[in-house]
Amino acid sequence: MRAASFDRAEVIGKITDTFWENGFEATSIQVLEAATGLKRQSLYNAFGNKDAMFELALDHYDSIVSQRLLATLEQDDPGIALRDFFTAQAAILLDADKPSGCLVAGGQQELANRDAVLGRRMGGLIDQQHDGLVAAFERWQAAGRLAKEADPSTLAAIVMTQVRGQAVLGRSGRGVELVRRASHEVPKLFERYFA
Amino acid sequence: MRAASFDRAEVIGKITDTFWENGFEATSIQVLEAATGLKRQSLYNAFGNKDAMFELALDHYDSIVSQRLLATLEQDDPGIALRDFFTAQAAILLDADKPSGCLVAGGQQELANRDAVLGRRMGGLIDQQHDGLVAAFERWQAAGRLAKEADPSTLAAIVMTQVRGQAVLGRSGRGVELVRRASHEVPKLFERYFA
Repeated sequence: MRAASFDRAEVIGKITDTFWENGFEATSIQVLEAATGLKRQSLYNAFGNKDAMFELALDHYDSIVSQRLLATLEQDDPGIALRDFFTAQAAILLDADKPSGCLVAGGQQELANRDAVLGRRMGGLIDQQHDGLVAAFERWQAAGRLAKEADPSTLAAIVMTQVRGQAVLGRSGRGVELVRRASHEVPKLFERYFA
Repeated sequence: MRAASFDRAEVIGKITDTFWENGFEATSIQVLEAATGLKRQSLYNAFGNKDAMFELALDHYDSIVSQRLLATLEQDDPGIALRDFFTAQAAILLDADKPSGCLVAGGQQELANRDAVLGRRMGGLIDQQHDGLVAAFERWQAAGRLAKEADPSTLAAIVMTQVRGQAVLGRSGRGVELVRRASHEVPKLFERYFA
């Protein structure tokens, strides 16, 4: 018997957007059926249960969002890198074709206090962003572009809190303007640490 | 017939903590019954439906969290005010006796895309924080403590995104350390705007 005839990558994209838009709790299997056009049994057979589908969504989100942001940090000039990082983040948040907010920030709000497995999975994505940022600040420091006294972990923490805050605020109409303002100015705040 | 014999303020506190801990969707009426020790009919009679209880929780949260934060800004020295603001915010987030995260940031993630009434209600709390921050930066600017070129709206936006980002990150074990680092350093980032 052949596997169900649908484009797996396309369906994973739809599942991702659905969790991203509605959060974990409000994304019932009925909502996923409507979003993908597939019956629940096809979804379960292809992807596993709702938790497994959420994990696939996290993987997909990692590849289209997290990796894109981390790639901007692979530049020698920390000022340009941070400007590009926040510009890319704002572009994703304010993209009218994508759900608003951040899948990980939203999932973290809903699940961190309640689901150990998914909480750990999101913790892994957060650690990855943290480690990527710390590595970038350490690299700039080793190259003499960042002051010796600057603490890469602290600067990484500030970037991460900004990113998540913009994701949360960007979900409301009024917040979009705040995100635009903040994402434009925040990179300049790090100039005090540049050597 | 007498009203149900319970301490209304105490029950509102428990309702608030329950939404704060679990978010809106996962807080079923059963969860509220367990948290308050009251039967659903008593809850409905006293407070209205789940949406109405969430609105009461937002009011209570406003009085114990939002107003406490805004009060720190009533100082003449912006450096001291912002340090106190972020210290108070971190103290609330890292208070082991309180749910982690932020009720408004969490509710915003869950509801902004889906519930117009509650979305507007949370929008009102967000506007209030925004307006309070803008007023403080404008006051400092008028008093010559903030550079003429600084834009109070942009600085308010940066503070607000930091606050929400710390609320999201503070929900995970690893994130607590990031919040501690960020909340200590972030006030210094605003020194570049001081006159």
